[in-house]
Amino acid sequence: MISFTETLSIIKQGIQDIYYPEQPSNLYTPISYLLDLKGKKVRPALTLLTYNLYKENIKEALPMALAWEIFHNFTLMHDDVMDNADVRRGQPTVHKKWDENTAILSGDSMLILAYQYALKSPAKDIRALLNLFSKTAMEICEGQQYDMEFEFRSDVTEEEYLKMIRLKTAVMLGGASQSGAMIAEASEKDSQALYDFGINLGLAFQIQDDILDVYGNSSVFGKNIGGDILCGKKTYLLTSAMSLSDKNTRKELIDWLNYKEEGKEKIKIEAVTAIYDKLLIKEKAYSKKESFYEKALQALDEVSVPDNKKEVLRKLAADLMERNS
Amino acid sequence: MISFTETLSIIKQGIQDIYYPEQPSNLYTPISYLLDLKGKKVRPALTLLTYNLYKENIKEALPMALAWEIFHNFTLMHDDVMDNADVRRGQPTVHKKWDENTAILSGDSMLILAYQYALKSPAKDIRALLNLFSKTAMEICEGQQYDMEFEFRSDVTEEEYLKMIRLKTAVMLGGASQSGAMIAEASEKDSQALYDFGINLGLAFQIQDDILDVYGNSSVFGKNIGGDILCGKKTYLLTSAMSLSDKNTRKELIDWLNYKEEGKEKIKIEAVTAIYDKLLIKEKAYSKKESFYEKALQALDEVSVPDNKKEVLRKLAADLMERNS
Repeated sequence: MISFTETLSIIKQGIQDIYYPEQPSNLYTPISYLLDLKGKKVRPALTLLTYNLYKENIKEALPMALAWEIFHNFTLMHDDVMDNADVRRGQPTVHKKWDENTAILSGDSMLILAYQYALKSPAKDIRALLNLFSKTAMEICEGQQYDMEFEFRSDVTEEEYLKMIRLKTAVMLGGASQSGAMIAEASEKDSQALYDFGINLGLAFQIQDDILDVYGNSSVFGKNIGGDILCGKKTYLLTSAMSLSDKNTRKELIDWLNYKEEGKEKIKIEAVTAIYDKLLIKEKAYSKKESFYEKALQALDEVSVPDNKKEVLRKLAADLMERNS
Repeated sequence: MISFTETLSIIKQGIQDIYYPEQPSNLYTPISYLLDLKGKKVRPALTLLTYNLYKENIKEALPMALAWEIFHNFTLMHDDVMDNADVRRGQPTVHKKWDENTAILSGDSMLILAYQYALKSPAKDIRALLNLFSKTAMEICEGQQYDMEFEFRSDVTEEEYLKMIRLKTAVMLGGASQSGAMIAEASEKDSQALYDFGINLGLAFQIQDDILDVYGNSSVFGKNIGGDILCGKKTYLLTSAMSLSDKNTRKELIDWLNYKEEGKEKIKIEAVTAIYDKLLIKEKAYSKKESFYEKALQALDEVSVPDNKKEVLRKLAADLMERNS
């Protein structure tokens, strides 16, 4: 059994070993630039760890692990263009460092590169593996589409929000987990259980992110607290606050979200947070997160391998739940 | 044996039969919008026709044929964003009719959809088929990158230009031709010969396009004559004129290309055309086109099927060479 830390060095080495043609360098350099920025590497680690529940030859799962990491970074490259984001992982985004066309075309190449890595997998049923990858990829595009559409709506329900993050965030953790099991030729039942593990972990992960944005410690979180509130982003906190509040409080909340006065950002964040506090949103979000976390652990329980082998995945899940950045 | 016209109705029906989820409609509607615009459908036809050299059950090659057509339209959707083009096939481009973010994200979904169709192919060696598809797709991104970089250079050589159109245009015709043979389980030698057929046809096709832009009949061509000259686009005509001209003529040519006075477009086009005429560029381009066309036919000769079966591909190639739109 390998540990999460060991998977990280295998993944890092795998990223180093990606071959890029020398020319055209403006197509390939932005890809390695983005992949080399530090990130959590949760998705590729899940593929290696679920494979390792069944088999020892981790190298067999590495191409698929890298496919998820490359795909994830492709979505970041294009999302940053669509969201007009300046900074990613503390560094300039690709379209800021180069330009939009570069980010579009290098992103396209990354999506193809992700498929090329998935195709290297020594899976018996490569078609099933790539169908899982494609279905997941398409769902992530759907999630991004909903996320962009939510920006222009103030009536997004908690249910709609959960559907969106399932697509945009959770399915990739589900797919990454399932794919490791598939390459290891696990049973259909185990594969499905690991998919459910990843999905629920992903949902809990995203709600944790939403909580940290408001209640985190900015020096640890790595982003400014209240960023989601400032740009009126739909989050679990906001959509559940909207559903829990009475007519007056909802109006107050919408008024604050539309409030754009410069220099008054702190007041806006404090006001919205005060409404959240009054509605006990932090507690509600924690309890929702916990319920997804519980479901993830239950799904893991269903997997037919000796319990001690699952410890590393349980530890990873627990660490993700307790993280503060 | 089916005819080119018969392939067109099969492809058209295949495009009609693509299933799109109802939601999010802003992700899927632009895909069907672009696929429904009229186009030549040369790429998918090549896949069906090369398959048909060996086998009769055309339906087996249809998913792969559609994969190429969807991929081709994905490149158009993103290229139109990068080139800031307003019109495609006589209709507004996706990023003009919707917006840039829509064109980026729907384009991404199209690339994934193309893979989903390729994956439906009943090919014995699905991995080899998808590797061909991925390699081709990556080369096309490289071609687009070079094409964009050429825009800022006035020293692009004829050789560089030919390399660029090989990547941007020809490899897709090569890949589409080879894939039909692969699905039909043709020999390695035949597959390769059909790839070469497609590549050379693609090169001839692009040079024909370059010629038509200057020497075509605007009412038939469907675009205004001289469009490439006006925007200083690197073409076979321009790069070979640069290499054939003496120092003075080259300076004259560059000066005209930098000439941007409004209302004087006609003068600019006439002046550059006059230089081309003086250098016998039209004749040179025709002869280059013919030499690629000849190579395509020679490659087709190498294919080990009865000669009469090749007639439909020869006819398609001849029609493409004689087309004036």
